[in-house]
Amino acid sequence: MPPRVVQTPDEVRAALAGRRARGAIGLVPTMGALHAGHASLIERARGECPTVVVSIFVNPLQFDRADDLARYPRPFEADLALCNRLGVDVVFAPAPDAIYPEPPDVTVHVGETAKYLCGAFRPGHFDGVATVVLKLFNIVQPDVAYFGEKDAQQLAIIRRMVSDLNVPVTIAPVPTVREADGLALSSRNQHLNTEERALAPALHKALTAARDAVAGGTREAAAVKQLAARLIPADGRLRLEYLEIVDPWTFLPLQTIDRPAVAAGALWVGSTRLIDNVLCTPPA
Amino acid sequence: MPPRVVQTPDEVRAALAGRRARGAIGLVPTMGALHAGHASLIERARGECPTVVVSIFVNPLQFDRADDLARYPRPFEADLALCNRLGVDVVFAPAPDAIYPEPPDVTVHVGETAKYLCGAFRPGHFDGVATVVLKLFNIVQPDVAYFGEKDAQQLAIIRRMVSDLNVPVTIAPVPTVREADGLALSSRNQHLNTEERALAPALHKALTAARDAVAGGTREAAAVKQLAARLIPADGRLRLEYLEIVDPWTFLPLQTIDRPAVAAGALWVGSTRLIDNVLCTPPA
Repeated sequence: MPPRVVQTPDEVRAALAGRRARGAIGLVPTMGALHAGHASLIERARGECPTVVVSIFVNPLQFDRADDLARYPRPFEADLALCNRLGVDVVFAPAPDAIYPEPPDVTVHVGETAKYLCGAFRPGHFDGVATVVLKLFNIVQPDVAYFGEKDAQQLAIIRRMVSDLNVPVTIAPVPTVREADGLALSSRNQHLNTEERALAPALHKALTAARDAVAGGTREAAAVKQLAARLIPADGRLRLEYLEIVDPWTFLPLQTIDRPAVAAGALWVGSTRLIDNVLCTPPA
Repeated sequence: MPPRVVQTPDEVRAALAGRRARGAIGLVPTMGALHAGHASLIERARGECPTVVVSIFVNPLQFDRADDLARYPRPFEADLALCNRLGVDVVFAPAPDAIYPEPPDVTVHVGETAKYLCGAFRPGHFDGVATVVLKLFNIVQPDVAYFGEKDAQQLAIIRRMVSDLNVPVTIAPVPTVREADGLALSSRNQHLNTEERALAPALHKALTAARDAVAGGTREAAAVKQLAARLIPADGRLRLEYLEIVDPWTFLPLQTIDRPAVAAGALWVGSTRLIDNVLCTPPA
């Protein structure tokens, strides 16, 4: 049976009303332009929950640049076909007006967890993410919600929101899916031309080098960052926005890597901004 | 049967797990020091919901002054006796650590609805109110939550939060309960000495005069405010913090009263701050 496609919060609630008694409802929140990374989230949900909901909503509140919002891909028919193939039960694809009938006056605010990395370079981004995710949670009322580890700071913030606001949902993190050369799958990868695509894996190479250095016993974050950043080729089309070593829960930068940490980076490749991260574990 | 008293979010969920199938759960969020105003909220909930939960929590996050938090009354045994008499099912009385195991990093932020009146004079107050109320909603997951109209700006903010964040709860407003001389019931009234108590009804008298002026056809808010403020006696123990005419939903000040409006005021009586409001309806 193809997914039921609904467009308003009331329609979501009606579509799910008869299904809660069957067991867990799993939610996969997306901005569409679905790729194999999203498929991995959906498959995980499908394996765990009798009811799977995929939301497709390009959230204006989390875009700090109008051009990025305008050119964000929206291939709805292809997304729906993938959801159909993966056995999704309900696709929630609201228009912006259905989510924001008026500009919201009450929103979610993220403090220190959003202070560094993407939060420092995209003002308001994570407040917008947290606000829309809380709205989706309140509309769908899922038992489990699935998030990709590729957006590691987002995942940390959603977990913190669930804890700080007592949101009754379980957050399930799902590992990043990568191309053969290490490039993390992202809806933004399709903006890359052939030459940019060839340069893009440099970010993952740098982060992997950081991981190896930490595994090899380097404890000073400054040294690890320096060695990793050197792996980004000196090329006019590449600009490293940040490369940082942070605590996996607080996302505050570490000086000394004396526990498992996340190495995270953002790399501009031409006019496309890519992010990635890897877990770094010091030797025993 | 006396109320079941629980102290942690997990205990609340356990206490309510078997009760949801019986029908609506009603929540009356309070800071304790229960009086006849709270009793009116509880009675309304008792009449509408098979399960009634009263929360008693003096929320540190919403106090802008440490002395006000310290001296806020906490007569728990008397509160529990009242809940027992009114047939409350569950009393949720957490310690601060159960609500804030660590300082919250993700919070609720209120914009323009908190810009004037109490919001202007109590920085951070309504962010703290909205945050704890959302936490209580997420912990209890009530079908209906009851709020007094005495705290009119708080009520408007909670309604706006429910709308902006799609919170799955119905907000039920309950009319203010007053003493015979018009003084709105408040847990802070017990701080008044005999002389202050005699002065305190001046606020309600001023607001009532505003209501009568509007009913009589005065449309200029400035004129209404001026004539109302004149009813506060010139007494060193009284200080009018604000007296404003606002839209009942946005809580933005009105210049011209061309629709139903709220006249709201805050009056310091000695070292005690009292608030009150009345609805003002222009003539047809």
